[in-house]
Amino acid sequence: MLIRMKNDATSEQIQAVRSQLEVRTLRFHQTVFFGRQVLVVHEVFDTPKLHDASLFWASLLEYEAVEEVLVIPLPVQQRTLSSLKAKKERTTIEVGPLTLGNGHFAIIGGPCTVESEEELIQTAQAVKKAGAAALRGGAFKPRTSPYAFQGLREEGLKRLAAAREATGLPIVTEAMSPEEVPLVAKYADVVQIGTRNMQNYRLLEAAGKSQKPVLLKRGFSATLDEFLMAAEYILIEGNDNVILCERGIRTFETDTRFTLSLGTIPLLKRRTHLPIIVDPSHAAGDYKLVPALAAAATASGADGLLIEVHPNPQKAICDGRQSLTLDEFEKTAEACRKIREIINSVSLISGHDTGLEEQERVIPIPHRLESYLRISQ
Amino acid sequence: MLIRMKNDATSEQIQAVRSQLEVRTLRFHQTVFFGRQVLVVHEVFDTPKLHDASLFWASLLEYEAVEEVLVIPLPVQQRTLSSLKAKKERTTIEVGPLTLGNGHFAIIGGPCTVESEEELIQTAQAVKKAGAAALRGGAFKPRTSPYAFQGLREEGLKRLAAAREATGLPIVTEAMSPEEVPLVAKYADVVQIGTRNMQNYRLLEAAGKSQKPVLLKRGFSATLDEFLMAAEYILIEGNDNVILCERGIRTFETDTRFTLSLGTIPLLKRRTHLPIIVDPSHAAGDYKLVPALAAAATASGADGLLIEVHPNPQKAICDGRQSLTLDEFEKTAEACRKIREIINSVSLISGHDTGLEEQERVIPIPHRLESYLRISQ
Amino acid sequence: MLIRMKNDATSEQIQAVRSQLEVRTLRFHQTVFFGRQVLVVHEVFDTPKLHDASLFWASLLEYEAVEEVLVIPLPVQQRTLSSLKAKKERTTIEVGPLTLGNGHFAIIGGPCTVESEEELIQTAQAVKKAGAAALRGGAFKPRTSPYAFQGLREEGLKRLAAAREATGLPIVTEAMSPEEVPLVAKYADVVQIGTRNMQNYRLLEAAGKSQKPVLLKRGFSATLDEFLMAAEYILIEGNDNVILCERGIRTFETDTRFTLSLGTIPLLKRRTHLPIIVDPSHAAGDYKLVPALAAAATASGADGLLIEVHPNPQKAICDGRQSLTLDEFEKTAEACRKIREIINSVSLISGHDTGLEEQERVIPIPHRLESYLRISQ
Amino acid sequence: MLIRMKNDATSEQIQAVRSQLEVRTLRFHQTVFFGRQVLVVHEVFDTPKLHDASLFWASLLEYEAVEEVLVIPLPVQQRTLSSLKAKKERTTIEVGPLTLGNGHFAIIGGPCTVESEEELIQTAQAVKKAGAAALRGGAFKPRTSPYAFQGLREEGLKRLAAAREATGLPIVTEAMSPEEVPLVAKYADVVQIGTRNMQNYRLLEAAGKSQKPVLLKRGFSATLDEFLMAAEYILIEGNDNVILCERGIRTFETDTRFTLSLGTIPLLKRRTHLPIIVDPSHAAGDYKLVPALAAAATASGADGLLIEVHPNPQKAICDGRQSLTLDEFEKTAEACRKIREIINSVSLISGHDTGLEEQERVIPIPHRLESYLRISQ
Repeated sequence: MLIRMKNDATSEQIQAVRSQLEVRTLRFHQTVFFGRQVLVVHEVFDTPKLHDASLFWASLLEYEAVEEVLVIPLPVQQRTLSSLKAKKERTTIEVGPLTLGNGHFAIIGGPCTVESEEELIQTAQAVKKAGAAALRGGAFKPRTSPYAFQGLREEGLKRLAAAREATGLPIVTEAMSPEEVPLVAKYADVVQIGTRNMQNYRLLEAAGKSQKPVLLKRGFSATLDEFLMAAEYILIEGNDNVILCERGIRTFETDTRFTLSLGTIPLLKRRTHLPIIVDPSHAAGDYKLVPALAAAATASGADGLLIEVHPNPQKAICDGRQSLTLDEFEKTAEACRKIREIINSVSLISGHDTGLEEQERVIPIPHRLESYLRISQ
Repeated sequence: MLIRMKNDATSEQIQAVRSQLEVRTLRFHQTVFFGRQVLVVHEVFDTPKLHDASLFWASLLEYEAVEEVLVIPLPVQQRTLSSLKAKKERTTIEVGPLTLGNGHFAIIGGPCTVESEEELIQTAQAVKKAGAAALRGGAFKPRTSPYAFQGLREEGLKRLAAAREATGLPIVTEAMSPEEVPLVAKYADVVQIGTRNMQNYRLLEAAGKSQKPVLLKRGFSATLDEFLMAAEYILIEGNDNVILCERGIRTFETDTRFTLSLGTIPLLKRRTHLPIIVDPSHAAGDYKLVPALAAAATASGADGLLIEVHPNPQKAICDGRQSLTLDEFEKTAEACRKIREIINSVSLISGHDTGLEEQERVIPIPHRLESYLRISQ
Repeated sequence: MLIRMKNDATSEQIQAVRSQLEVRTLRFHQTVFFGRQVLVVHEVFDTPKLHDASLFWASLLEYEAVEEVLVIPLPVQQRTLSSLKAKKERTTIEVGPLTLGNGHFAIIGGPCTVESEEELIQTAQAVKKAGAAALRGGAFKPRTSPYAFQGLREEGLKRLAAAREATGLPIVTEAMSPEEVPLVAKYADVVQIGTRNMQNYRLLEAAGKSQKPVLLKRGFSATLDEFLMAAEYILIEGNDNVILCERGIRTFETDTRFTLSLGTIPLLKRRTHLPIIVDPSHAAGDYKLVPALAAAATASGADGLLIEVHPNPQKAICDGRQSLTLDEFEKTAEACRKIREIINSVSLISGHDTGLEEQERVIPIPHRLESYLRISQ
Repeated sequence: MLIRMKNDATSEQIQAVRSQLEVRTLRFHQTVFFGRQVLVVHEVFDTPKLHDASLFWASLLEYEAVEEVLVIPLPVQQRTLSSLKAKKERTTIEVGPLTLGNGHFAIIGGPCTVESEEELIQTAQAVKKAGAAALRGGAFKPRTSPYAFQGLREEGLKRLAAAREATGLPIVTEAMSPEEVPLVAKYADVVQIGTRNMQNYRLLEAAGKSQKPVLLKRGFSATLDEFLMAAEYILIEGNDNVILCERGIRTFETDTRFTLSLGTIPLLKRRTHLPIIVDPSHAAGDYKLVPALAAAATASGADGLLIEVHPNPQKAICDGRQSLTLDEFEKTAEACRKIREIINSVSLISGHDTGLEEQERVIPIPHRLESYLRISQ
């Protein structure tokens, strides 16, 4: 439910409407939407009160400053906070040396999981030298098996902070439950929401409330609508700094760990102002495929890459199989930066400046010949 | 990490080993596994300490009461708490009139979401009359869009409790985050973990700790290994009462909402002692397909069904499209009970008594002719 | 392109229109469609002549006996030869003891591939005794590898004919290319089109022209629209005897060979008059799952089953892993016949009598509450 | 079944073995395999004769010139004609100006279907100017619906030949059945096998026999093993000129027509010497995504691209929605050539020179820590 105020609504007028919601103990949030103040109401009344509810919403229309009262059903591409219509320009994420989105390209590198502090600092220095703008590393690890290594938890966060201290690189690390978010946000610069938790709505809300930038990974089999709606759970909390991350989807193909779906990049560019990066490491599941997929992701127009790097993959606690060595990472990063330069010069690939007003070719479906020949039906 | 004690280990001997773990502040849990006392250690040391860790684990072997110290990697089908080898007989879930598993078949019916108390009690009475053994209904609703109805929360739980009061039917309802579990467990008889949260590990742990029976739905694209390992997160907390629920997987097929995968039923019967039920309503996404899929699920050997029913589907707040009317539910339930009787009499379908010792046909792969003819290679 | 004649069109009037098509060397076919004579034109003109073509089609409308000239684009569910509107009652396939469709249920059993004549006759006698109405067996085998056994070809067909001689069971066997169809049709009672060839259009046309009943298997990843349109390639040749066969689709799930999609059965029952059977053997890829899937398929309302049986699966040349023994087949067939009796008595599952006129519940999408509350938009 | 001759086998010695096969009327083919003469026997005896067969094969070993007699079961990656071990260097396809594979990159462009000759020649001239090395265009069109435009057949082939005449570009066009292959091969320079026919084995055999280069498209849901084995059906006929083409797979994702799986490129580079190109047009199903996917495919290391181009997509008979304009094609081709230059300089992406001898990192699975800690099991 959205209550959209008029252009010239004063804060007193808005407060009057807020009071009506507060009196009824409705959860809501005030934000700017399509350039106007909007009250986003999280609750919807239950049916027995449906008639009353209807009257209540109708009554709000009598406030002079209220322009419209509306419900947003799916598909919501035209009206959501993530849509291209909700914002004049594409979102840029800026955290220290990390600038990503709206034309800016950045690589985030680091180990799957935090191991020793010494090794982590070495890795951080090396990925920085190779051009990475941020350091990734897991402290809380979501693992398929409860018997597998679960991460170093707060100790891991402290080591990440030490690596930031040593290099200046901002830290990207994952939170797995609402209660963990404050702890993770205390140490991290970007809070990651993992694939398995893309629809863990309480966690999304907590990440939204943290006001830290959030890196949201696509679910194993999430549609783009579901992906954007998960981002909406974060945006609705007033947190605009969401980075979407394509990381491969689950398909019948088992030669790769997941199938990296790069059509996602140009598609999302046409539907949202949020930056989209790609994680080729988890998609591939095998270091040998990572350079090619990193290059492909860059060429598809992605705003950045999230790559697993380990100084000694054979000894990594987890995901060594998909980790690049420091040398491989450096070569891959360099090739990707060069590809990015080419892409930047071809507007029909990058879509960075033309997404919003572009005229589309009108191509009738079904096929033209058939339509033309249809004489009577 | 598992430390398995010998058959004749005394509690003092076990305590001596526990002390070693406690001194190192390791998270662990004591349970019965393969008929022996076992200490399940949730933590694994980090690599810098790897050599020390190895020595530590080795040192435990010197305790006379310790039989073995082992790590359980995937695939773990032979050794996990959910496996057929971990328990002498199949698990039966018993809560009031609901008896499910190990040969017992039960139907759980009710609305997608709790609406008015009056209507809920009516529905509960009708599904009871039609033979349902438990009532389902959502109070906390995980919804793709933050703008969609999110459920009545505690008020919904209270109405469910009132319906139990009126009918004696136990209540099945969902919890969405670790913090919600105590509240849900206060009212519910069975705590449901939804599809989107199958790998929300903190939630699984909390549900395990609640000691209430847990109904765990399969994730949209979870493999059976991942499904069983999610159950393991509950079992490891000492909570044996887990009901697995197949509810359709995501495939290229869009004519149904999801693809109901009934091969899952005989497959899981051969791999776990836990009961497996089927939710045909969410798989179908369309009431017209639900009776056929409910019948098929029963015929495949499922231990029960979870079906959405609404006295007036056209007016349901959510999922009316896939809800049966009370009359349709009654006819479907009756047909399923008759099919169940037939299945019970055919051991090669139901697998209830033969799963454990059965001799399998040994069929060499690759094909016999080719193998036979291979003269030199 | 269809030219539909009026109810009272005489054969002279129809010939006059045919002449117009013949003069332009257009490929076409005359058939009965929606109870009227129809000329189905297979060709569509190319674009340079588009204007002329349009004039030509328009000119046909001036023939008094022509009622309408129309193009059939996708989705075509309302108008195709396979649709429920094209025929008054559901199709029954009758070949000797095999009666299938429109309420009739039948089981087809036999080995994956024809081996020795003696063994084949033994198997045929045993499946007949167990209640099978037809014998399946491959003479031409489509194999993933060119190095795998390719079938006994005509020798296999001869052995199948000998088994028919001995038992009276009609023969179902596969043709793999247009040129093979006449040879296969010479021996077989039902020509099978395999999964890999579902969209081998020249083969479909040849099978249609053979005028033998055709058993058409669904492609590995065919949508239901594509499946029905493949059937249309056969029907358009004036061959009404098409049996659709669901045999599992390719999904991310690898624990079974394919994922048997039983929602297909009630869905197709609502869209076509053609009978639909299920092949649980290829879907499962493992004999242990076949009885449960056969039972489930029957319960879902399928018109029949296609099951692989082998007197000695360990020695089968191919697919022994998924073949039932004769004893297992007998028990499975018996259970399925009993389930079928139950299903027959529940019209909301079988759909056999109600598919055509049934009133559907109108359930608005999106959800009712939201629609109701939408005050302005 | 393969009979591999010794290095120094004379043609008389080989003929002696051939005679043994001919006497038994076995289908076979002589070719060079691993640098030796090999007799590839297509037939395998049926079981009743199994014992005799075994003796027969064993008897062949007594010929001095026979080195080994072997069966090739799946997985066959080490031994098939397409494998990296079967050939010293990667295959190059050379037809007029088209040079593709083994380091050579080429773009093939043209309309979905041949329309007017005039327009086709214009398009051919424009794609040549933009740097295309070959012209594609459909004369025989496999269409989901029998009512859709089926192509201009031989007339289309003649127009393609006229376009070749006018521009010098070699022609790529599809054949749909074994009988059509000679006609198509008469006009075309490269015979295309479409997605729906990837496992139409008789067609593959006919294409192999034509001795024309064959462009083989991956099936909608074919695994890489199945894809390579389909190529093997062509190679086994002694036709080495096979171009593999990735064109998107069918997944749950419906925002694009298919999901372009670019992990395929580096994976296949490690398994076969055959060139691999990508068709971004059919994968995307929407022209707006084609430039980004073409760039991504190039960056992933593909040996070429197959792109649909139409001078006026709004008026195309089919697939106008996914066709680039001539101007878009030119810009896309230019960006791809630049990306290719970068890729060529990074051996860890292109893999062109290192695939064969490269040392792989040995990374034990399951994870190292767990393995290390496993003290007893």
